[in-house]
Amino acid sequence: MSDTLTLGVDSAMGREVMAHIDLLAACSESPDCLIRTYLSDQHARANALVLDWMRAAGMECQVDPVGNVRGRYEGRRPGLPALILGSHLDTVRDAGKYDGMLGVVTAIACVKALTEAGERLGFAIEVVGFGDEEGVRFQSTLLGSRALAGNFDMSLLDKRDGQGISMAQALHDFGLDPARIPEAAKQPDEVHAYVELHIEQGPVLEAENLPLGAVTSIAGATRLQVVITGTSGHAGTVPMAGRKDALAAAAEAITAVETVCSGAAELVGTVGRLEVAPGAVNVIPGEARFSVDIRAAEDARRRHAVQTVIGAIEEICARRGLALKLERTHESPSCPCAPWLIEQISRAVAAEGIAVRRLPSGAGHDAMAMAGLTDVGMLFVRCAGGISHNPAEAITAEDAASGARALLRFIRDFDSAARRAGGSRAMKADPA
Amino acid sequence: MSDTLTLGVDSAMGREVMAHIDLLAACSESPDCLIRTYLSDQHARANALVLDWMRAAGMECQVDPVGNVRGRYEGRRPGLPALILGSHLDTVRDAGKYDGMLGVVTAIACVKALTEAGERLGFAIEVVGFGDEEGVRFQSTLLGSRALAGNFDMSLLDKRDGQGISMAQALHDFGLDPARIPEAAKQPDEVHAYVELHIEQGPVLEAENLPLGAVTSIAGATRLQVVITGTSGHAGTVPMAGRKDALAAAAEAITAVETVCSGAAELVGTVGRLEVAPGAVNVIPGEARFSVDIRAAEDARRRHAVQTVIGAIEEICARRGLALKLERTHESPSCPCAPWLIEQISRAVAAEGIAVRRLPSGAGHDAMAMAGLTDVGMLFVRCAGGISHNPAEAITAEDAASGARALLRFIRDFDSAARRAGGSRAMKADPA
Repeated sequence: MSDTLTLGVDSAMGREVMAHIDLLAACSESPDCLIRTYLSDQHARANALVLDWMRAAGMECQVDPVGNVRGRYEGRRPGLPALILGSHLDTVRDAGKYDGMLGVVTAIACVKALTEAGERLGFAIEVVGFGDEEGVRFQSTLLGSRALAGNFDMSLLDKRDGQGISMAQALHDFGLDPARIPEAAKQPDEVHAYVELHIEQGPVLEAENLPLGAVTSIAGATRLQVVITGTSGHAGTVPMAGRKDALAAAAEAITAVETVCSGAAELVGTVGRLEVAPGAVNVIPGEARFSVDIRAAEDARRRHAVQTVIGAIEEICARRGLALKLERTHESPSCPCAPWLIEQISRAVAAEGIAVRRLPSGAGHDAMAMAGLTDVGMLFVRCAGGISHNPAEAITAEDAASGARALLRFIRDFDSAARRAGGSRAMKADPA
Repeated sequence: MSDTLTLGVDSAMGREVMAHIDLLAACSESPDCLIRTYLSDQHARANALVLDWMRAAGMECQVDPVGNVRGRYEGRRPGLPALILGSHLDTVRDAGKYDGMLGVVTAIACVKALTEAGERLGFAIEVVGFGDEEGVRFQSTLLGSRALAGNFDMSLLDKRDGQGISMAQALHDFGLDPARIPEAAKQPDEVHAYVELHIEQGPVLEAENLPLGAVTSIAGATRLQVVITGTSGHAGTVPMAGRKDALAAAAEAITAVETVCSGAAELVGTVGRLEVAPGAVNVIPGEARFSVDIRAAEDARRRHAVQTVIGAIEEICARRGLALKLERTHESPSCPCAPWLIEQISRAVAAEGIAVRRLPSGAGHDAMAMAGLTDVGMLFVRCAGGISHNPAEAITAEDAASGARALLRFIRDFDSAARRAGGSRAMKADPA
């Protein structure tokens, strides 16, 4: 395809992407902030908008049995295996408007450009707006992409939201039949790959003055819940030497998390929650509860950091004579992107005249669940200040256009044969 | 007086003290725990019990205009200056039953012993059950003792409790006239001294296997409210080097408080409250708010520690590029006990065959407010595990009896002339 055509649709695509983002952002359960949870009325409104845009872009579309909205643009002949594009349509509470949505509307804009140019390719394109990625309503993430990948856990249907409504009931109320969720699954031979465009949600691209990046891997994560129990006491009467101060121990543990996780690249560690009991100005804390979240692009690096942190916390509590309860609440291995997709995404970025930055994703994405079905790749778009999960989340229209242009180029140049040449999707993307 | 007489009343006094403690503990605003706040119905019930016991002990008694219950036992002739004994009748939430009450019921038991022996002394004895020391209801402490010392701040009458009831209204509802509070004040020439028996609320006496201790000084205290502001961000996507993690900075500050305050004797430092925002497992904390409470028997030692801690926190925030707001929310100088009273209390303890341990009080007491009126002294009784402000607060009946015996001996041997000989009450009690 000619660069002239690509450039011709560029600013129109960027404008349309930004306009559609704003229309989706208006579908909120709260008048004060953006929140749109799985199977809510606002989810239905967002699905209706996306269905309209898919139709206008020349796609056949439907809502699938788990509530994902799905559109298909046939290739040169009907029934060809598909390149799946997409992201999620649900949000966190007090969300930004780009997280998830940008990947859906940009993919639709790309298909629209193909339709308008009258182009059919050697593969079908499917665009998905996943109904749940964030897991806000039922405290279980990636529901939409798990169903499409054929890995939906039907026992989740009994889970209840904050109002006591089960997921099965919520699906019924949404007009769906929970028993048909398995029908949402794709078969591996129907699919070439899954590629997701998403805002970075981090500061790396901005710091390097680059609009786009090719994701190498979605970081694995370990979460710990730590409870340190000492002895509360009067802040004025217990001499320092006799104290069993749970918060003083937690403070040492927090410093250990920071120190250990600052010791290697592509490794991060965070204590995001901390509660102190009894929590009075004049009482020595008898209990401190805190979370530890450790992530790394490489599983071995993460596991080593987790063991080092646990060892440090055990040493701190033993030395201070405090009781320690440490629970692993979450453990997910890293999800490498397929080298052949990283390569083709990188080529599309480079062809736009942009230096290729390969970087891991510290955040989780639908691509993690889709990796159970097919090879996955991701294209990151720079976001202001690296801020996400926050109403201040922002991207420029220029970057939106760059993302759309690179994704369109990637689609047009997509070579599914490279998959067989490039080796298994289990191969590490980047030994970094 | 003969030791035989003292020993004769011993076990009866101990039993009565413990029985009265239990009767007061039954006056609670909650069926689940002990809480009795200033000017509550349960405060009135407790006052009524104490008035009965005072009358039975041979005292003239009344509730004063601020709600303190006060009894007077005349000396060899009416109108002699008084030795004031007492403590408070209010409690914290989920309190123990000895904090405050033990000093009131023991003093009454001592007067009863004098009455039963037909003894009149060269001074009057007044016993006070202060209505508010803890400050739970109106967030302002020592209301009862301040009124008696003539230092009640009348502007406090506008303060409101959690239900929006003003202190003036609460006094009215209790049957008192707020305008008459100044009449609760004693004049200095009506008083020889104030002596308070109290549980230690700390572990020092228990650790040294001693039932009693003579207090040298009530520690001065400084409280800080610290707010550290960084930048919240996604726990997975922001590299360690680019973080402005408010909790990681607070952790260093907590360690600094512990280190600085472990560096000298009779100095303690505590971070008892800490709140983290936004407080999610996967979000880097953008804000940490915490309290710092530093106490020392010596003001110079406390001031030096406070300055060192503030300097450390400022250095931590500057090095990490975080904003710091640090506010001094409370500042009270130490309150030395009068050397002549420490001496007479020590002599009474020694005469009971108990090794004399002089120790500072890390907790605040009514004696601090009474020091505005007269010289003060305190006698500590050992408590189990040093635990206080907790339903597990406990003393033995034997220690209660030892305390009553030593206080009775102190009263009988009280030599008010030593005050003029012993120098000003502003003199430091113990240079430690």
